[in-house]
Amino acid sequence: MSVTPTKETAFASTLVKDSYGKSLVRLTKINRSGKVPTWKEITVEVELAGPEFSGCYYEGDNTKIVATDSMKNTVYVYGARNDLNSIEEYGIALAKHFLDDYKHVDEVNIRISEDIWSNILIEGGVHPTSFVKAQSDMRYTHIYMTRKETKITSGIDNLIVAKITGSEFAGHIKDAYTTLKDTHDRIFGTKVEARWIWKNEKADFNAGYEKARQIMLETFAHHHSLSAQQTLFAMGDAVLAKVADIDEISLTMPNLHRIPFNLEPLGMENKNEVFVNTSEPHGTIKGTMARKK
Amino acid sequence: MSVTPTKETAFASTLVKDSYGKSLVRLTKINRSGKVPTWKEITVEVELAGPEFSGCYYEGDNTKIVATDSMKNTVYVYGARNDLNSIEEYGIALAKHFLDDYKHVDEVNIRISEDIWSNILIEGGVHPTSFVKAQSDMRYTHIYMTRKETKITSGIDNLIVAKITGSEFAGHIKDAYTTLKDTHDRIFGTKVEARWIWKNEKADFNAGYEKARQIMLETFAHHHSLSAQQTLFAMGDAVLAKVADIDEISLTMPNLHRIPFNLEPLGMENKNEVFVNTSEPHGTIKGTMARKK
Amino acid sequence: MSVTPTKETAFASTLVKDSYGKSLVRLTKINRSGKVPTWKEITVEVELAGPEFSGCYYEGDNTKIVATDSMKNTVYVYGARNDLNSIEEYGIALAKHFLDDYKHVDEVNIRISEDIWSNILIEGGVHPTSFVKAQSDMRYTHIYMTRKETKITSGIDNLIVAKITGSEFAGHIKDAYTTLKDTHDRIFGTKVEARWIWKNEKADFNAGYEKARQIMLETFAHHHSLSAQQTLFAMGDAVLAKVADIDEISLTMPNLHRIPFNLEPLGMENKNEVFVNTSEPHGTIKGTMARKK
Amino acid sequence: MSVTPTKETAFASTLVKDSYGKSLVRLTKINRSGKVPTWKEITVEVELAGPEFSGCYYEGDNTKIVATDSMKNTVYVYGARNDLNSIEEYGIALAKHFLDDYKHVDEVNIRISEDIWSNILIEGGVHPTSFVKAQSDMRYTHIYMTRKETKITSGIDNLIVAKITGSEFAGHIKDAYTTLKDTHDRIFGTKVEARWIWKNEKADFNAGYEKARQIMLETFAHHHSLSAQQTLFAMGDAVLAKVADIDEISLTMPNLHRIPFNLEPLGMENKNEVFVNTSEPHGTIKGTMARKK
Repeated sequence: MSVTPTKETAFASTLVKDSYGKSLVRLTKINRSGKVPTWKEITVEVELAGPEFSGCYYEGDNTKIVATDSMKNTVYVYGARNDLNSIEEYGIALAKHFLDDYKHVDEVNIRISEDIWSNILIEGGVHPTSFVKAQSDMRYTHIYMTRKETKITSGIDNLIVAKITGSEFAGHIKDAYTTLKDTHDRIFGTKVEARWIWKNEKADFNAGYEKARQIMLETFAHHHSLSAQQTLFAMGDAVLAKVADIDEISLTMPNLHRIPFNLEPLGMENKNEVFVNTSEPHGTIKGTMARKK
Repeated sequence: MSVTPTKETAFASTLVKDSYGKSLVRLTKINRSGKVPTWKEITVEVELAGPEFSGCYYEGDNTKIVATDSMKNTVYVYGARNDLNSIEEYGIALAKHFLDDYKHVDEVNIRISEDIWSNILIEGGVHPTSFVKAQSDMRYTHIYMTRKETKITSGIDNLIVAKITGSEFAGHIKDAYTTLKDTHDRIFGTKVEARWIWKNEKADFNAGYEKARQIMLETFAHHHSLSAQQTLFAMGDAVLAKVADIDEISLTMPNLHRIPFNLEPLGMENKNEVFVNTSEPHGTIKGTMARKK
Repeated sequence: MSVTPTKETAFASTLVKDSYGKSLVRLTKINRSGKVPTWKEITVEVELAGPEFSGCYYEGDNTKIVATDSMKNTVYVYGARNDLNSIEEYGIALAKHFLDDYKHVDEVNIRISEDIWSNILIEGGVHPTSFVKAQSDMRYTHIYMTRKETKITSGIDNLIVAKITGSEFAGHIKDAYTTLKDTHDRIFGTKVEARWIWKNEKADFNAGYEKARQIMLETFAHHHSLSAQQTLFAMGDAVLAKVADIDEISLTMPNLHRIPFNLEPLGMENKNEVFVNTSEPHGTIKGTMARKK
Repeated sequence: MSVTPTKETAFASTLVKDSYGKSLVRLTKINRSGKVPTWKEITVEVELAGPEFSGCYYEGDNTKIVATDSMKNTVYVYGARNDLNSIEEYGIALAKHFLDDYKHVDEVNIRISEDIWSNILIEGGVHPTSFVKAQSDMRYTHIYMTRKETKITSGIDNLIVAKITGSEFAGHIKDAYTTLKDTHDRIFGTKVEARWIWKNEKADFNAGYEKARQIMLETFAHHHSLSAQQTLFAMGDAVLAKVADIDEISLTMPNLHRIPFNLEPLGMENKNEVFVNTSEPHGTIKGTMARKK
């Protein structure tokens, strides 16, 4: 390789931000250390940043580059070394490695999605070595780590819920752009995306995840909703009220409209029974709640 | 509309097969007739065929055409009229309608996918009016109906399973194109697509579906697999052995390979614990089993 | 491996149909034999059938099994051996291999999708070694081969078109399920899926593909449409009229509705300018045209 | 609606960030004002923020809420009012509306994706009223607007390219986690996602988009690449050098690996001709370049 020396001055522009990494590294881990084996499947992303990488952008100087192929190897090496008791613990170990081994790396981001598998139910209990991925929502974590700070964000994707009563929407602005009427009884369906920030590295990640998921489901079920926004807040607030390890939570909740099908032109009445299930367009409601200090 | 008369002789070709219909009609149905309401979400396709539709292809003569928009209306009208106790019963009612009302329709195909929802679990039981679509596999039916024959096929999509022991693959042809070695212990992961044909319209569709799903899961868990083919056959055979309402079953089972990650170049041993989870390429195994007469 | 001998009589069912193969084998081929290199990217599926495979289903007897991993190897070996001048010629060579080398294979199905790449346009012409996948439609072929018969079907997927005038729909059945009114000027948008059967193995596959694609586009553009069905027929008929190598063509054309947005409640008139672009539900129109004998 | 008065103090948490809007609003616009009509298809997202929306989250007080259904109406109203000469001009008009009409709205984000359509080519030219969406990459814009600031970011998604020579990768860190060897001739394939920031609202958006797209393609083709990072920088730098209206550009370029298929175990040599085309895992390279002041 003959790197033609180039100087920053040769360029019209300056590199103001950069990072690189490996995405969609899919790891299956069987942990055979316990009485029964466990089975996990995760998809990992590694992303590194640091000022010394700029030579690679300006001049194609790769001497500071951890190859993305090596990042992939590292994901599997740590997959072997780590129990993978939780994606958070595994992700933290992985992030530390990159800061420990490469002094010129300033910032590591590890993002992990986990498919939720469970043992197959058979007569008399569960089968110890056979599994089903029956659950449609997924668990997620993002480890952000620098030499000064670690921030662990976890969450849930694709948690699809609906309630058929206890949801109103009324009193909104009525102006020249409005055709929507007030309603005091509508279906409220959504697909929750949750992201919460853990207090610190010592949090009980697995228990916290289970609890947050259940609290969100229960709050959604029980809440008398005057707006999607209000229910979103109630869900996040309930998580913060009951999971001390969580400091802040962000929820994104699309309003996946079920529109009553108009049966009148067809000579029938729609007794609030038949709806058009739609994906687009949809409302998108976002909110971040932080525990009061 | 002024249809310019065209003659079949004006064309280079003859229409040898045709059909048309409406796809992706999404229906949400709340049945409030029982003690607690039920909630179903389905996606319906209607497809019609008959010789008199050819005028529409040759000449743009729409006088025999049931507009696909009217098919959509009909899906919702029957969504209101029918209990939707099962997608099969609803689909049969819908198919009959098209044969009854339109004498020139010879063949009706109704295809329905059902998202599986359940009540949200709360402390002390289930919430009666709030639901979660937590299950990742889907239920399916296809009603084929002519004036002479009704064939009801049902099934399951996206049933994702894996077993970590009890799966071998050995003794296959070794020739110039072979690099795969025999293995007596591999992960076997798949995503089952099942299609079964019911004995008749009187079958207990809901019980049969539940039973078939559970039998496939259990058989997959228990079977000592010498090949994906053998496990597929065992699963289909078990369904036919135990569900009298089902006459024939077809299974498609991709072999979703988990490849042991080679840790040796990295100075470690992979104790059958760390695998690369892959989607492509994948084996695809298909088989149709019929009950012995 | 110790196959426990099982007898067909041990089962509740008989295997009535089976096949197996390898899917999603993705091949990038650079042909450097000409003046400038060519670049192709295809996704291949191999599927084999034959009565002797049943032992694998009944008893896990793999002695007749061509491993799907070996099929994958074969795709790449023939990727190296074959010029890949066309996916049809490559697919035929691949299919012949499986029948030639394995006497117990009765039927081979090869299915290939091709991404369409072109050289990057630069000032003064095209760059010889840099490519862009700028085209959104894809080329397809399916080789069905037994010892008695070869059937070569090719086609196009995802050819997305729309016309803003010259499309009517009127005169359809008006009954209790109808709300759609006649229209003499509507947008007609669709996503063409074409499958045509070649006369024989000697057809000029590349020229035929280019011609068929262009004829379908031109006919769609020029045709005064009284129904989607009529335009579909006209497109297929035009291909058969002008491409002698093609004997039969099947088209599937969803009617991807653009619905005029009702601006009246907002105090404006929609001068046939603003539409809601929809994906679901959609009409689905199918037709197969064969050349007159 | 009877809002039960709730007080902020009743909650465990405080709302620290919120916004809401409408997503996936799909608009088809035919502009018939010129000599020939034009056809555009876009997907719009509207997102609003402002402190007065918090009442909706805390108490379900909707009096300040612009219903997301009204946002949808507004997209179509402005689709009728605006020429849609460019998605940027349309998006700016839409954003201004929300700030002008609703004094309590502090921040508007409009995001628009545009499918690229062109007239169908026929013998002798183009057909004036028939269109094909033949291009696989898409155009994008994001208008961020507050009462103090407007920031217009535009870009391209899904621009898929590959080069078969002039790409090296060597000299990277070799340590215990490294198995990748130096290479001086590899395929470099990527799917470019570009986002650039315009100097101001007066930029020539359509010319700038066309120019930026072409410059990125040409630079990718011509650049002798020592790393994906270096090519990314060269592409961004070239855009900034030649398009004065653009101040800053961010590129995300996955390294979509084509891995030489190992033919040696099959008794052949791979003369750099046959590759496995992969989607996962992939490298992900990101960089932001700003014009030097």
